[in-house]
Amino acid sequence: MSFSLTVLGSSSAVPTSGRFPAAHVLNVHERYFLIDCGEGTQIQLRRYRFRFGKINHIFITHLHGDHIFGLFGLISTLSLLGKTTDLHIYANPKLEKIMEVVQPYFFEHPLPFKIVFHPTGSSKQQTIFEDEMVIVKTIPLKHRIPTTGFLFREKKRPLNIKKEAIEFYDIPVRKIQSIKSGSDFTTAERKIIPNHKLTLPPWKQRSLAYCSDTAYSERIIKYIENVDILYHEATYGSDMKERAHETFHSTAGEAAMLAKKANVEKLIIGHFSARYKSVAPLLEEAREIFPETFAAEEGEIHSVVQKRIKRGDQ
Amino acid sequence: MSFSLTVLGSSSAVPTSGRFPAAHVLNVHERYFLIDCGEGTQIQLRRYRFRFGKINHIFITHLHGDHIFGLFGLISTLSLLGKTTDLHIYANPKLEKIMEVVQPYFFEHPLPFKIVFHPTGSSKQQTIFEDEMVIVKTIPLKHRIPTTGFLFREKKRPLNIKKEAIEFYDIPVRKIQSIKSGSDFTTAERKIIPNHKLTLPPWKQRSLAYCSDTAYSERIIKYIENVDILYHEATYGSDMKERAHETFHSTAGEAAMLAKKANVEKLIIGHFSARYKSVAPLLEEAREIFPETFAAEEGEIHSVVQKRIKRGDQ
Repeated sequence: MSFSLTVLGSSSAVPTSGRFPAAHVLNVHERYFLIDCGEGTQIQLRRYRFRFGKINHIFITHLHGDHIFGLFGLISTLSLLGKTTDLHIYANPKLEKIMEVVQPYFFEHPLPFKIVFHPTGSSKQQTIFEDEMVIVKTIPLKHRIPTTGFLFREKKRPLNIKKEAIEFYDIPVRKIQSIKSGSDFTTAERKIIPNHKLTLPPWKQRSLAYCSDTAYSERIIKYIENVDILYHEATYGSDMKERAHETFHSTAGEAAMLAKKANVEKLIIGHFSARYKSVAPLLEEAREIFPETFAAEEGEIHSVVQKRIKRGDQ
Repeated sequence: MSFSLTVLGSSSAVPTSGRFPAAHVLNVHERYFLIDCGEGTQIQLRRYRFRFGKINHIFITHLHGDHIFGLFGLISTLSLLGKTTDLHIYANPKLEKIMEVVQPYFFEHPLPFKIVFHPTGSSKQQTIFEDEMVIVKTIPLKHRIPTTGFLFREKKRPLNIKKEAIEFYDIPVRKIQSIKSGSDFTTAERKIIPNHKLTLPPWKQRSLAYCSDTAYSERIIKYIENVDILYHEATYGSDMKERAHETFHSTAGEAAMLAKKANVEKLIIGHFSARYKSVAPLLEEAREIFPETFAAEEGEIHSVVQKRIKRGDQ
C-alpha cells in the first residue's frame, strides 16, 4: 500500500539545466495524484516511467506559468494517446476560463475525454476529493495571487483481523466485519474472546501537506499539524529574505520553522530559485532548525512506510 | 564564423523520456535563430548553455502544440530575466492573436520587452529576415494546417584580400574595397597586378533548409536545391507509410528521396514518432537512398565548415 511522493520538478519560475518547474506525483494506493504541472511535466512523467493512463487527477496550486505551462502539452498528449475517461482538474476557477479560451487554438480536434473542473477557493479549507481510501483538502496559502496548498490524508483504516485467529477460533465470515470494527467474539462454547486478541491495531493514516507557493504563515499550522510529509516551498535562503518577502515566497529557514511548529515528521523543501546552483546551503539552513529536512530533487521518491497505531492511541 | 544547427528536440507530438518536442538553434555568425519552440525549449537552452540574452529571433513553422508550447515559458523567463530588447517572432499570423488572448492570463505583468510579430504565409516564398550577413526565406510546406519551412542562407561574401599582397605591393587602404570587388591593382611603377594574384576566392554561401512538418512534396525542391543541410521531418518509417500520408507527415525514405532529388550536401531527419524506441531503422531506411543522412539527437551540433568557392565558379 504505497504512499509516496515523486518529485518531477524542483525549480521555481526560471528553470535550470537540471531542475524542472513544479510538478509532483503522489501515489496513494496506486491512485496517482499529479500536483502542479509546470513545463516539461509530461517529459518527466515519461522519464520516471509513470503510465499516462494513470493520470486522472491534477491539482493546481495557483495559476502562475511555472505551475501550469505543462498542462497544455500533457492534455494534448493524453488526447493523442486516446484517453477517454474523465480528467479531473482541481484549480482556481479561472483555469476553466483559460482552457476555454485556448482550446480552439491549442488542440486540433475536440478532446476525446471530458475535463471536469473542480474549483478551489483560497479563503477557507474545502474538501475537494474523497473516495474510500483517501481524502484531499485545500490549504489556504499566502501568495501574490489566490493560491491553495493541498492536504492528502488516508482515511481511517479498520482493525486488521489476524488470520491465525480466524482459524483458531473458527470465526464465521459474517462476524469478520464487526470484529474489524472492534467487537469481541463469542465462541460456540460461549467463551468471550476480547477483540485485542483477535486483531492488530490498524495502520496509521498517512498524510502529505503540499504548500507552494507561499510566504511564511503560521495560520496554516492548524491544517498541517503532525503530517508525515510537509512539502514546503523554500524559493530562497535567508540571504534573500527581503526578496522572499516582497515576492510572497519563503526562505528555507522559514519552511523549517513551520515544520517544527507544526510537529511534522519530515520536511521536503523545493521550488528553488535558479540563483542557487547548489541547494546545499538552503538544506543546511533548514536542518539547523528542523533536522528531518530533505531537498527536493528530480526523480527522488519520498515514501511513508506503514506503521500500526499503538493500542490506546486509536 | 559559425554556421551550425543544434538540435534541442527530435520528437514529434508525443515526447519520450529522451526526446523533447521540436526546437533547434541555428547559429549564423553568432546570430542565434531559434526554430520552433516545443515544450521544454527553455530547459534545453539551459542544458546546452545557450545564453537567453542571445535569443531575439524565433521562427515557428506552424501552430501545432508540439511546436509552440515552449513559447509561453520562454517568454515568461525572458521577462523574469529582465529582457528589454525586442523579441521577433516569425509565424502564422494567428500566433499574434493567441498571444493577445493568453497574455493577461499567462503573464503576471506587462512584458518588459516588445514582441514584434512577422506574419508568414504558406502559399508562396517570402523573405522574412535580412541583415548584412544572412537572409531568411520561407518554404511553403504541405501539412494539415498552414505550415512554412525556413531557408537560412549566408549572403554573398566578398573576395578575401591576401595580407601578404597588401604588404608586398604596398597597397593603399583606399584601394582595398575595389580589389575585394574584383579590380586589378596598378602599382606606382604602372605594373598591373591581376586580381587573382591579390585575393583568395570568397567563402561559399552556406545554407540550411528546415522542413517540418510536411508530407513528401517535390514542389519544394526548387527552394532547397543544393543546400548544405536539409533538416526534413521523418515522423515515421516506411512501415507506417499510410499513417504518414493520412497525417501529412513523411517517412524517412521520402525525406531521403527529397534530399537526393534536391542534391543537398547533408540530410538531418527528425520529428520522430514516439513509437520508435530506437530511430536506427529510420536512419538505415534513409541512408539506403541518401547515404549522407543523420538522425537528429538532442544536444548534437551539425556544423557547416567554411569552404572557398573555386575560381571560375563565382
